[in-house]
Amino acid sequence: MTEIHLPDDLVHSNGGGRIVLVVLDGVGGLPHPEHGRTELEAARTPNLDALAASSSLGRLIPVAPGVTPGSGPGHLALFGYDPLRTVIGRGALSALGVGFPLEPGDLAVRLNLATLDDQGRVVDRRAGRPSDEEARAAVDALRSGFEAWEGAGDTEIFVLHEKEHRAVLILRGSGLDDRLRDTDPQMTGVPPHPPEALHPDAGSASDLMLALLDHARTVLSERQTITGVLARGYALHRKLPSMGDRFGLRGAAVARYPMYRGVARLVGMEIPGEPGSDDEALGLLEASFPDHDFLFIHFKEPDARGEDGDFDAKVAAIEEADRAMARVAALEPEVLMVTGDHSTPAAMAIHSWHPVPLLLHSRWARPSADRFGESACRTGDLGQLEARHLMSLALAHAGRLDKFGA
Amino acid sequence: MTEIHLPDDLVHSNGGGRIVLVVLDGVGGLPHPEHGRTELEAARTPNLDALAASSSLGRLIPVAPGVTPGSGPGHLALFGYDPLRTVIGRGALSALGVGFPLEPGDLAVRLNLATLDDQGRVVDRRAGRPSDEEARAAVDALRSGFEAWEGAGDTEIFVLHEKEHRAVLILRGSGLDDRLRDTDPQMTGVPPHPPEALHPDAGSASDLMLALLDHARTVLSERQTITGVLARGYALHRKLPSMGDRFGLRGAAVARYPMYRGVARLVGMEIPGEPGSDDEALGLLEASFPDHDFLFIHFKEPDARGEDGDFDAKVAAIEEADRAMARVAALEPEVLMVTGDHSTPAAMAIHSWHPVPLLLHSRWARPSADRFGESACRTGDLGQLEARHLMSLALAHAGRLDKFGA
Repeated sequence: MTEIHLPDDLVHSNGGGRIVLVVLDGVGGLPHPEHGRTELEAARTPNLDALAASSSLGRLIPVAPGVTPGSGPGHLALFGYDPLRTVIGRGALSALGVGFPLEPGDLAVRLNLATLDDQGRVVDRRAGRPSDEEARAAVDALRSGFEAWEGAGDTEIFVLHEKEHRAVLILRGSGLDDRLRDTDPQMTGVPPHPPEALHPDAGSASDLMLALLDHARTVLSERQTITGVLARGYALHRKLPSMGDRFGLRGAAVARYPMYRGVARLVGMEIPGEPGSDDEALGLLEASFPDHDFLFIHFKEPDARGEDGDFDAKVAAIEEADRAMARVAALEPEVLMVTGDHSTPAAMAIHSWHPVPLLLHSRWARPSADRFGESACRTGDLGQLEARHLMSLALAHAGRLDKFGA
Repeated sequence: MTEIHLPDDLVHSNGGGRIVLVVLDGVGGLPHPEHGRTELEAARTPNLDALAASSSLGRLIPVAPGVTPGSGPGHLALFGYDPLRTVIGRGALSALGVGFPLEPGDLAVRLNLATLDDQGRVVDRRAGRPSDEEARAAVDALRSGFEAWEGAGDTEIFVLHEKEHRAVLILRGSGLDDRLRDTDPQMTGVPPHPPEALHPDAGSASDLMLALLDHARTVLSERQTITGVLARGYALHRKLPSMGDRFGLRGAAVARYPMYRGVARLVGMEIPGEPGSDDEALGLLEASFPDHDFLFIHFKEPDARGEDGDFDAKVAAIEEADRAMARVAALEPEVLMVTGDHSTPAAMAIHSWHPVPLLLHSRWARPSADRFGESACRTGDLGQLEARHLMSLALAHAGRLDKFGA
């Protein structure tokens, strides 16, 4: 019995049309208590509405019903990867988020800068939430301390500051393993857990982490508040099958924030640059368009304003993205999709599980409304589907999928 | 690569809101040939309609498209258990149905009271469909006969009457096994099959069943019509992971009929009492509310009247349940869900596979209609989903699920 894996086993490599995926991060919302419209429905979006009128509409379930995704699984699903089987650990995502170029075999670890007392007990798991400046100084001290340290043998050590009390550690060497116990005890008044091996093969990684965390305490011993680190979210970085291998697509990713570029790089997309504005991002998209089959462009603001809990600011962010859509649509790709990686309702001020509006513009669409919004998408032709199936739909509309069976 | 099992791997135990699940058994229906409205749509349901207006609507597929569930899988799915992986055997369901407190390791067997001739051949597989009184007398005789019998060694034997020709046998002891052949030959004129072992480990259970069925014939030999029993639906009762372990929920189940209490007990819900009326059931729900996180209340009548094939009576049963909804809604749980375990269209007078209307009331809902019914639910925000995903949605809306991935 041969098992068929969709869409991998269906792709043909004889070319086809170009696919553009526009992610309006966190675009899905909830009705405003006064007028009953969501952020997207309240926004004036002439470009998106015009696209919707000649698109198939629908809604994406990012991971599974009721499941609120982080940005990593949210984007992996949109790129055609099952987010329940392709899990990127917290440490790896942190590394990608600060722009670190992870390589297969790297062990990435989330660090909390913490306050430990003389006896080594945790006094504050977040070191009193230090300012970025204070935290960066401690991370710089750690970096210097590790450079001078010989305890790691041939293993390279990288430490980067993330934000506030959060930092990320990357170990590069042979024989690393992520089956280690988190040292963060999740409470105060007790010492950190040792980074015990949770699998027989993780013994040497455990020894290394133990020595490393010990050395970190020595390095930080003269400081006032940041006197130690807690480790969690170990992630051994494994190479994923690329979008090229799986779908025969040459992909390019345009995003202003490093994490989104990082996730795209994970699946083999090229990164044409690091845009500082939406305008620069659009320029990179236009420049990359002729040489790529799949182009992903990411707009962060709707999510950021949703997380602020600011309905009106999220509406404005969506309107801003709508203006950018004119340049995207002008490229006239065979397939143009607009959706989000998840919902971020301003009413909740956090990511949510709610299905995300989707439009798929193609000459083979079945339009059903002339507005892009949750209500219009609820009764659209694409129905409600798991986000990991979106890539199959895109490939089909681009004329890149063979018939299945005879 | 870690594979994630939903929703088990997502739950946090830091509390969250209360969840109430109201099951209107068999509520889904089919359009009346004259006016085109289903039973639920024809019913006057002001309380359900008011809830619907501030709820997300959708439809549940009990097991899979086209699959008509029994009450066991129908409820297991609503409780968050995959009904295709968590199978309760017929015998166990019968035992639960008569209120028998099954324990792990018990072997439950459905018995047909049957007529066998002098040569031991089956004359009537259902003994002429005896009255409950006649059948109960035969079951009492069997029970006495087994009490005096020494052939079972240390294994305890329980026999209980179910309804008409149906009874249930429970064996409690060590080394029992359900991999046995049904003795019911499904035809007359031939002797019953022996309860052969279908697995090498089932040898001693096979020997015991053979001796037991033989003794049953001896006990019943003086009777006129009920002169033997046929065994089928063997089910070794295994402990399921509880709702507490899986979801961090302390559950309570309020139901007038023992089978529904039994299925709820299987997944670790507490049973605060055995109500004799809907009014008593509501009282138990109210009394259990403060001390539980998940409360399930079951209304049987819509299904019973549907199985009668009586459209108007089913409408009346739904209206009766709607009146009860006022007291349920007054509890103001964080999440209030109303649905059925399956459809029972009066036109079919039997359980069916049709998707079941669902409303989920929560502050994070996306309302779409001010009526609760099949048509309104068809275009609701929750779309159409397998019933086993309902628990994830409930946990999410109650603020009990962590974000998945970073």
